[in-house]
Amino acid sequence: MSAKLKILLVNGPNLNMLGRRETSTYGTQTLNEIVDALTDYAQNQQVELSHIQSNSEAELIEAIHAQYGQCDAIIINPAAFTHTSIALRDALLSVDIPFYEVHITNVHKREPFRRKSYFSDVAEGVICGLGALGYRAALDAALAQLRKQNNSN
Amino acid sequence: MSAKLKILLVNGPNLNMLGRRETSTYGTQTLNEIVDALTDYAQNQQVELSHIQSNSEAELIEAIHAQYGQCDAIIINPAAFTHTSIALRDALLSVDIPFYEVHITNVHKREPFRRKSYFSDVAEGVICGLGALGYRAALDAALAQLRKQNNSN
Amino acid sequence: MSAKLKILLVNGPNLNMLGRRETSTYGTQTLNEIVDALTDYAQNQQVELSHIQSNSEAELIEAIHAQYGQCDAIIINPAAFTHTSIALRDALLSVDIPFYEVHITNVHKREPFRRKSYFSDVAEGVICGLGALGYRAALDAALAQLRKQNNSN
Amino acid sequence: MSAKLKILLVNGPNLNMLGRRETSTYGTQTLNEIVDALTDYAQNQQVELSHIQSNSEAELIEAIHAQYGQCDAIIINPAAFTHTSIALRDALLSVDIPFYEVHITNVHKREPFRRKSYFSDVAEGVICGLGALGYRAALDAALAQLRKQNNSN
Amino acid sequence: MSAKLKILLVNGPNLNMLGRRETSTYGTQTLNEIVDALTDYAQNQQVELSHIQSNSEAELIEAIHAQYGQCDAIIINPAAFTHTSIALRDALLSVDIPFYEVHITNVHKREPFRRKSYFSDVAEGVICGLGALGYRAALDAALAQLRKQNNSN
Amino acid sequence: MSAKLKILLVNGPNLNMLGRRETSTYGTQTLNEIVDALTDYAQNQQVELSHIQSNSEAELIEAIHAQYGQCDAIIINPAAFTHTSIALRDALLSVDIPFYEVHITNVHKREPFRRKSYFSDVAEGVICGLGALGYRAALDAALAQLRKQNNSN
Amino acid sequence: MSAKLKILLVNGPNLNMLGRRETSTYGTQTLNEIVDALTDYAQNQQVELSHIQSNSEAELIEAIHAQYGQCDAIIINPAAFTHTSIALRDALLSVDIPFYEVHITNVHKREPFRRKSYFSDVAEGVICGLGALGYRAALDAALAQLRKQNNSN
Amino acid sequence: MSAKLKILLVNGPNLNMLGRRETSTYGTQTLNEIVDALTDYAQNQQVELSHIQSNSEAELIEAIHAQYGQCDAIIINPAAFTHTSIALRDALLSVDIPFYEVHITNVHKREPFRRKSYFSDVAEGVICGLGALGYRAALDAALAQLRKQNNSN
Amino acid sequence: MSAKLKILLVNGPNLNMLGRRETSTYGTQTLNEIVDALTDYAQNQQVELSHIQSNSEAELIEAIHAQYGQCDAIIINPAAFTHTSIALRDALLSVDIPFYEVHITNVHKREPFRRKSYFSDVAEGVICGLGALGYRAALDAALAQLRKQNNSN
Amino acid sequence: MSAKLKILLVNGPNLNMLGRRETSTYGTQTLNEIVDALTDYAQNQQVELSHIQSNSEAELIEAIHAQYGQCDAIIINPAAFTHTSIALRDALLSVDIPFYEVHITNVHKREPFRRKSYFSDVAEGVICGLGALGYRAALDAALAQLRKQNNSN
Amino acid sequence: MSAKLKILLVNGPNLNMLGRRETSTYGTQTLNEIVDALTDYAQNQQVELSHIQSNSEAELIEAIHAQYGQCDAIIINPAAFTHTSIALRDALLSVDIPFYEVHITNVHKREPFRRKSYFSDVAEGVICGLGALGYRAALDAALAQLRKQNNSN
Amino acid sequence: MSAKLKILLVNGPNLNMLGRRETSTYGTQTLNEIVDALTDYAQNQQVELSHIQSNSEAELIEAIHAQYGQCDAIIINPAAFTHTSIALRDALLSVDIPFYEVHITNVHKREPFRRKSYFSDVAEGVICGLGALGYRAALDAALAQLRKQNNSN
Repeated sequence: MSAKLKILLVNGPNLNMLGRRETSTYGTQTLNEIVDALTDYAQNQQVELSHIQSNSEAELIEAIHAQYGQCDAIIINPAAFTHTSIALRDALLSVDIPFYEVHITNVHKREPFRRKSYFSDVAEGVICGLGALGYRAALDAALAQLRKQNNSN
Repeated sequence: MSAKLKILLVNGPNLNMLGRRETSTYGTQTLNEIVDALTDYAQNQQVELSHIQSNSEAELIEAIHAQYGQCDAIIINPAAFTHTSIALRDALLSVDIPFYEVHITNVHKREPFRRKSYFSDVAEGVICGLGALGYRAALDAALAQLRKQNNSN
Repeated sequence: MSAKLKILLVNGPNLNMLGRRETSTYGTQTLNEIVDALTDYAQNQQVELSHIQSNSEAELIEAIHAQYGQCDAIIINPAAFTHTSIALRDALLSVDIPFYEVHITNVHKREPFRRKSYFSDVAEGVICGLGALGYRAALDAALAQLRKQNNSN
Repeated sequence: MSAKLKILLVNGPNLNMLGRRETSTYGTQTLNEIVDALTDYAQNQQVELSHIQSNSEAELIEAIHAQYGQCDAIIINPAAFTHTSIALRDALLSVDIPFYEVHITNVHKREPFRRKSYFSDVAEGVICGLGALGYRAALDAALAQLRKQNNSN
Repeated sequence: MSAKLKILLVNGPNLNMLGRRETSTYGTQTLNEIVDALTDYAQNQQVELSHIQSNSEAELIEAIHAQYGQCDAIIINPAAFTHTSIALRDALLSVDIPFYEVHITNVHKREPFRRKSYFSDVAEGVICGLGALGYRAALDAALAQLRKQNNSN
Repeated sequence: MSAKLKILLVNGPNLNMLGRRETSTYGTQTLNEIVDALTDYAQNQQVELSHIQSNSEAELIEAIHAQYGQCDAIIINPAAFTHTSIALRDALLSVDIPFYEVHITNVHKREPFRRKSYFSDVAEGVICGLGALGYRAALDAALAQLRKQNNSN
Repeated sequence: MSAKLKILLVNGPNLNMLGRRETSTYGTQTLNEIVDALTDYAQNQQVELSHIQSNSEAELIEAIHAQYGQCDAIIINPAAFTHTSIALRDALLSVDIPFYEVHITNVHKREPFRRKSYFSDVAEGVICGLGALGYRAALDAALAQLRKQNNSN
Repeated sequence: MSAKLKILLVNGPNLNMLGRRETSTYGTQTLNEIVDALTDYAQNQQVELSHIQSNSEAELIEAIHAQYGQCDAIIINPAAFTHTSIALRDALLSVDIPFYEVHITNVHKREPFRRKSYFSDVAEGVICGLGALGYRAALDAALAQLRKQNNSN
Repeated sequence: MSAKLKILLVNGPNLNMLGRRETSTYGTQTLNEIVDALTDYAQNQQVELSHIQSNSEAELIEAIHAQYGQCDAIIINPAAFTHTSIALRDALLSVDIPFYEVHITNVHKREPFRRKSYFSDVAEGVICGLGALGYRAALDAALAQLRKQNNSN
Repeated sequence: MSAKLKILLVNGPNLNMLGRRETSTYGTQTLNEIVDALTDYAQNQQVELSHIQSNSEAELIEAIHAQYGQCDAIIINPAAFTHTSIALRDALLSVDIPFYEVHITNVHKREPFRRKSYFSDVAEGVICGLGALGYRAALDAALAQLRKQNNSN
Repeated sequence: MSAKLKILLVNGPNLNMLGRRETSTYGTQTLNEIVDALTDYAQNQQVELSHIQSNSEAELIEAIHAQYGQCDAIIINPAAFTHTSIALRDALLSVDIPFYEVHITNVHKREPFRRKSYFSDVAEGVICGLGALGYRAALDAALAQLRKQNNSN
Repeated sequence: MSAKLKILLVNGPNLNMLGRRETSTYGTQTLNEIVDALTDYAQNQQVELSHIQSNSEAELIEAIHAQYGQCDAIIINPAAFTHTSIALRDALLSVDIPFYEVHITNVHKREPFRRKSYFSDVAEGVICGLGALGYRAALDAALAQLRKQNNSN
């Protein structure tokens, strides 16, 4: 593992609308603001954070493939793909990188079809309903886990 | 709302094959012929109709995002995405534009998995089995609804 | 087929309460007003429209039986019978007349038991959520279909 | 029990259409022809057969109530009510008369919803797919059962 | 609301057979006896109680429609229609009168299909298994509720 | 088709125990008595009836195969195999001979798993609860059907 | 049975919060006020009413065990245990005392998991949605039932 | 709201076994160590953290009742009660205090019955699989939420 | 493993009522009699048997925790908790002691909800319907298993 | 009942492979060794034990028929037929001999389809996971039950 | 493993009817023709192919048992037993020989009950719809797999 | 049909990772190696094989549309889209070209959601678990089928 840990942040479809889309549900913070704050936070922790948001399942799959052997952990908010994309699940499995699943809202309060996730049973952890703080909690957990592994090696 | 109403017509995957694909089910009219006729009809009603057909979920999502604050109603035939794309549903919800769901054939006569729609419970109305006339009915309904709202404002 | 097309409009239980029943859901137009407007519209199209509303399943069945060999199409809003009456379905099948299923409201936004229809899989088309315009769309579709058949004979 | 056995034949909704309705499924014999033949057959067996056909669930219920303490057995083809009418089931239970359920066609070859019967688990026997012969088989069975009971009393 | 409260008592199919039908389940009291006793009880409470029993869904629906704006509460034992009649449910909703659902026997001890009610989720309260006392409890509850509302107005 | 009609009677597992097995359910008549009576009845109708009872699915399958092109109809009481043997169903389909399914008792009054039949949807007709008379009714129906076909040829 | 009837009132978990907990759902009356009023009412009827409320399933079970051979009827509001406690059901069965199930609110209007009760199919009767009046109705029913039994002994 | 925020930490059954129970699943840290670390962390944030662990549903319910009007948020790991205790859910609702649901392990990787939670749809947020860090993330989220509310008041 | 084997016998809720509770189902032997006989039997086998019966899930959980590293096997009749208590299952897993599940009656003959067990898939073996002999069979099996392990060590 | 009790031991398909088949699951003892040991044990208890193992459902059925009126109890390990053979269940019911169901392994730990048994609800008792000891426990239980009946006669 | 590979071909019930049974579904080739061609093909590959077809589950089970330690792979078309025979599945598992499941037709196009297989999850591979070529493909795959293993040993 | 047959090979998402992705499941052969070998094999059979792999559903759809009237058969491994993409199914139906579904691994051994295919019921045949040989078997089958059709034309 490299001296500086590398983490990829992946945001799925419609998250580019954050801040204007259904603000009573999702809040008024834009995705850029969230990602900038998280990047700063990561840098303070000596973590190199890269980011992709896409509405295209194929782009997300290929961004994950590109990380094969390159990064240490993935933090992913699959958004609507949570419930429908086995291909994205398979992409994560194919690169064999531990990942954390994050949802900004509490999906359990919403439509029943949002209860099913194709990611949770292969994720390290799952966080929902903490707003943008959820990404930070996932980053903390990934760091703790990776550092524990480094120490035990 | 602008003086001239704007409506987006969205057609999902494989509808570009209309006119040659399974003509006993879908008829011999091509999508272009249908759209041209509907555009004429719309112009007569003082409606500006734009159109997108795509086989790509991402392109459809982004076409809808682009309408944010720009158009008054959407008429969508999600085709196969009707039954599988929560991302497209979320895109429609994210722009907060009323929409009508149209299917050319009567989906209730076909495979059981075509009974489930991720759109119907958030659509204004749902039409199936009327052939190309379904689009026109949706347009009439959208106009009636929008004019009623304008009058009551 | 006769020179002047004949269509029967059938309205099921509780639709006599339209205009006072749950007006936030169904609007303030009464059934009489809707039927009068539709009758005018039909006459302009050279269609002879007859109408029955009943809260009695038996009366509806027998009204349909009486059309055997008499009319060209049926437009039916089975209301609550949509979800429970196989006898009414069988009545429509027994006279072998094409029919269109119409619901004033979008039934997909209401109780889950309103999702099941004993009519949709044998109807020509299904329309919901367009308000009274739904009847007119069904009439247009029936006319288009009947005229196409006449031409091809 | 009276010297001459009394049996009520009950036919449910749409059976008045027999002979013209879907003749490929139901044959060309009318209900009158079937009932006349069965009445003759019954008379030869010293059975008094009465008959009601109705499209009204209420009329059927009340015809059954009227038999309370009056007849020895009921042969019923509940038609579409087979699958939906608990009230008719309750009417049969309320008069405590043994009954046989008959269907002209083999309901197991048709739509899945025709598999469920509210009558079979409280009937003496169930017959389907024998055409009009099914009524005769039910009558034979009722006679055999009633005569066996008389002998054992 | 009128000085003297008005309540409609509705009894569904087969309840006219009370007292002879399955007496081990339903007891030997006839419906007339039950209604007479309840009418007396109501009069003592300054309540005007009217009553309808019918085996016809249509008659029950129209009896309820007729109460639109006329009575203060409905006590209904839908009997077998409990489990099958969405039309009756809709009739009650269409007149917007609070109602109580009563069953003489404990339906939970009987066939599984008697567990489903189309009324309970829109009723004020549900009572079963108290015998004829159930009607009285419903009347008490209706009075208490109506008087509380009157006082708070 | 031969001048004299040939019918095979097939009885499944445990039916050799008839007459001693659970006599309150199945009666005291033995299988031999039932078959002898039916054979006499068949002879009177100019029908050659052969019979097999076996507790072995394989023997039943092979007895049916042996009839390929040999007999005109099959009457089968598959007993417990009704609910479990797709192989027996396939054997019947493989010889392309019309068959009738008979059960001595009313299976709808028994354990829920006896509701499912692998035969009913491909049988000509289904009879249950008529006791030994059920076989006779099946034979009558087979004859009627075969003679009708002969006449129309 | 003793000269003076004895009835135990059992209230399950969280009912001690009545009057402050979710008052829009449960009203502002405290449990003490309800129990006091019911005790007065019982005394007027010559009934000795004892009461237990507990948040502990074990305490409730043991309170019921202690009544073995001691009291004539139980009125129980199992609250959340309605849907989860087979042990409490078994406790009631083990003492063989008739019991009535009461819910203050109409559970059918709430979360779907509140539809299932482990008590209803073994209770004498079930009451919900009548508020505190439900307890009184249960007491009336218990008295009527017990007095009828006493008379017939 | 008090100047210093108060938060209750609730740990459900078997969590007292942490550190020796199934350490390959739960790790070797004891509950005391986790709670001590979290208490320190809370103090640094000016939060007063109290704690209860119990294997008794009743004790947990009453500990929550005792917080009525006393604390600002609850962090709860209901452990096995997650999937079975509606009473605990009701206790949380009865005190109307926002709460966060935390699981040390990723429950989605374990037995299917651990997928159902009676808490998630009424929690503010849900966290699983982060180990002891999950508690800290919940505390951060609670603080952020409470401070945002304070500021907006 | 100690020279003398130690086994804990655990009996769940309502088993203290054995001998008076539903004696037609459970027999007339009291729990004390059963436990005394089993203790004698165990002593003859050089096994130290301890026993707990409780109606409290928490007490049972803590009795099991207390055995951590102390006993060699557990014999448990979880009674009603069989079907509802994941917490008790987790307690057994947390101490990592092999256990046998025993039911006095044949639970498969009773209510359908008694078919589901939260214990069977993690038990060594499951016994039901042998009456008190079931405990002895479990003890025999535990001994055989433990001695086999001792020998192979 | 004869002076010396007679018990039939029945072993179903593939049990002849015991000792070589999947030894990690089933152990290395052969079926012969198990049966020999059980026969000795039975003789010591004055029981005459006969045995059949077959891979043929028909052979097993006929072996059971042959016991009609001949033996006092049956111990059966139906192996794979547990989950599929209603014919074998019916054979056991047809001879009206009490029987015990035994499985060598704990079927609840294996594939989900092994959870369903066509025997358990009509068996006296069910034992699984005790290895060969399970047969002995069944024999003990059968003896106890038969002797108790003899004594009470 | 022997120098010459040995493979057993197993064909289940009704496959002896191939070539005359439902030829529109199964083609006109007989089983003998298929097996002869496959035997030739195998010989060319230095494989010794033996074959069994049986309509008896027991015969198939015992043919498989007989291969224990004798052959290298099994190719099986379980026909109707695919969906019903756990005993045959267990036989294959008991001999621990890799096997391939073959169906001549595409079972996914037929009745829904043909979708469930008791073999697929323990087979090496599954082939359907390739006609007789499916057997050859299975043989090729078995050879490739066995030779790979031989090489790696 | 052209003299030289044309076949399109379609590989779905993540198959570009073959050879490095989860090699214990998928083996170490890369997709390029598989396709090259298959292309050689096809050329020897006088077949022109073209190939597309894409992680984009839209690209796959459009590649299939482009074959309309151009190729004779399609071999498709839809990978994760097998279970989720109705749009891809519709694309295949829209071009009316026979296709074979291939999976490298045995999907029946994996997660339950991999059991559902949107392709199998409209495919010619389905192959899984044969590794790269599966593609060759599909090609053989397609050739055999196409040549048979050519011969019969």
